[in-house]
Amino acid sequence: MGSATEPVTARSSALGSRALLPPEQSGVTDKRLLRGARTRKIVLRQAVDVASLEGLGSISFGHLALATGLSKAGIQTLFKTKEILQVSAVEFARELFIDAVIRPARSAPHGVARLRALLDHWTVYAETPLFAGGCFRAANLADFDSHPGPVRDALLNDQREWHGVIAAELGHAVENGEIAELDVELAVFQIDALLCAANTALQAGDTGAVGKARRIIDGLLVAPRS
Amino acid sequence: MGSATEPVTARSSALGSRALLPPEQSGVTDKRLLRGARTRKIVLRQAVDVASLEGLGSISFGHLALATGLSKAGIQTLFKTKEILQVSAVEFARELFIDAVIRPARSAPHGVARLRALLDHWTVYAETPLFAGGCFRAANLADFDSHPGPVRDALLNDQREWHGVIAAELGHAVENGEIAELDVELAVFQIDALLCAANTALQAGDTGAVGKARRIIDGLLVAPRS
Repeated sequence: MGSATEPVTARSSALGSRALLPPEQSGVTDKRLLRGARTRKIVLRQAVDVASLEGLGSISFGHLALATGLSKAGIQTLFKTKEILQVSAVEFARELFIDAVIRPARSAPHGVARLRALLDHWTVYAETPLFAGGCFRAANLADFDSHPGPVRDALLNDQREWHGVIAAELGHAVENGEIAELDVELAVFQIDALLCAANTALQAGDTGAVGKARRIIDGLLVAPRS
Repeated sequence: MGSATEPVTARSSALGSRALLPPEQSGVTDKRLLRGARTRKIVLRQAVDVASLEGLGSISFGHLALATGLSKAGIQTLFKTKEILQVSAVEFARELFIDAVIRPARSAPHGVARLRALLDHWTVYAETPLFAGGCFRAANLADFDSHPGPVRDALLNDQREWHGVIAAELGHAVENGEIAELDVELAVFQIDALLCAANTALQAGDTGAVGKARRIIDGLLVAPRS
């Protein structure tokens, strides 16, 4: 019976119901918002594809207009600056990664089982790429590492979040006694390094690279010597 | 007493002595060649800096002309196409890498000592970057992995050569009984993955990353259990 189920009054609408309600409930203005959200999604989907192939530096309002058939002015109205567009593309890619890798692994129990589930979903993510140029993070971090600013910050936040997920599950695995005590920070660095290298090699045609990364990571996830 | 010390005759010159002799020995035409070689070096030095920062895709005759103060037409005459310029930049970066990392390590004996010397020189190479954007190979392979063609081939050849150097020394280390038998291909993949990740992290401001990579690699270079 909370505020989410209360009827929409003129007053609550005037106070900004648009932020509280799904857009389909509040009439004409919100149809425009909905259209905006759809356009945003089309543009960002194209932007992350281009960025995974050519790098975030190469996305532009003009090229995105050409590729999507939308007007350049319309895209510019939505994103204002190239930097906002780039940061939005990182955010969008992050959400797709969560949907493809993190969320489906949540059904596995914490610890080694969850880690293996994450790696399995990551392998599918890398081998049947969600983005035209493979792993978005790997492709763009190597590119933006020397460029301080909001885009690099967004990429680093995304990487930190991914590292945090792996670290938490390594912690659970140690706690459960499934693997021997290990330097979690070092293991996370190693696992991500192997996945990034596997992605690059895979994109370059080396189909055995993901298997190599998995074999090395499996070597980290072994039972402690009794 | 070989052909290299024979006097230059009109005939040998007509047969193409320029290819056989250092350019400073054969007069006016070769002064022009020498100037060409110098220009080439200036352009390529600038090109690898830009490519390590922005990616090989972003180098152009126009920008290089602006950055070096040379004429765009002159640069275009030297390199003909952007692709030739990109491949030449990869070659140039490869030579600088050999001078900075491979050659100075040659004074160390084969095996673990040579591996450690390679890693020491690589660390200096990564920490006081030879290129504005850090490791040229790491920055550009992640970028060009999805683009088949001569540029990617040049980058992959360069990577294969580097992998070959590490593999050979791991082989020596096993032969010398300095480290336990290991899957050399897997270890090479792992070492390069860690160095690439360390380079990206270092460029992004994580000064501890190279140390992490070194600690993990040192873990591979341990004496066999007796």
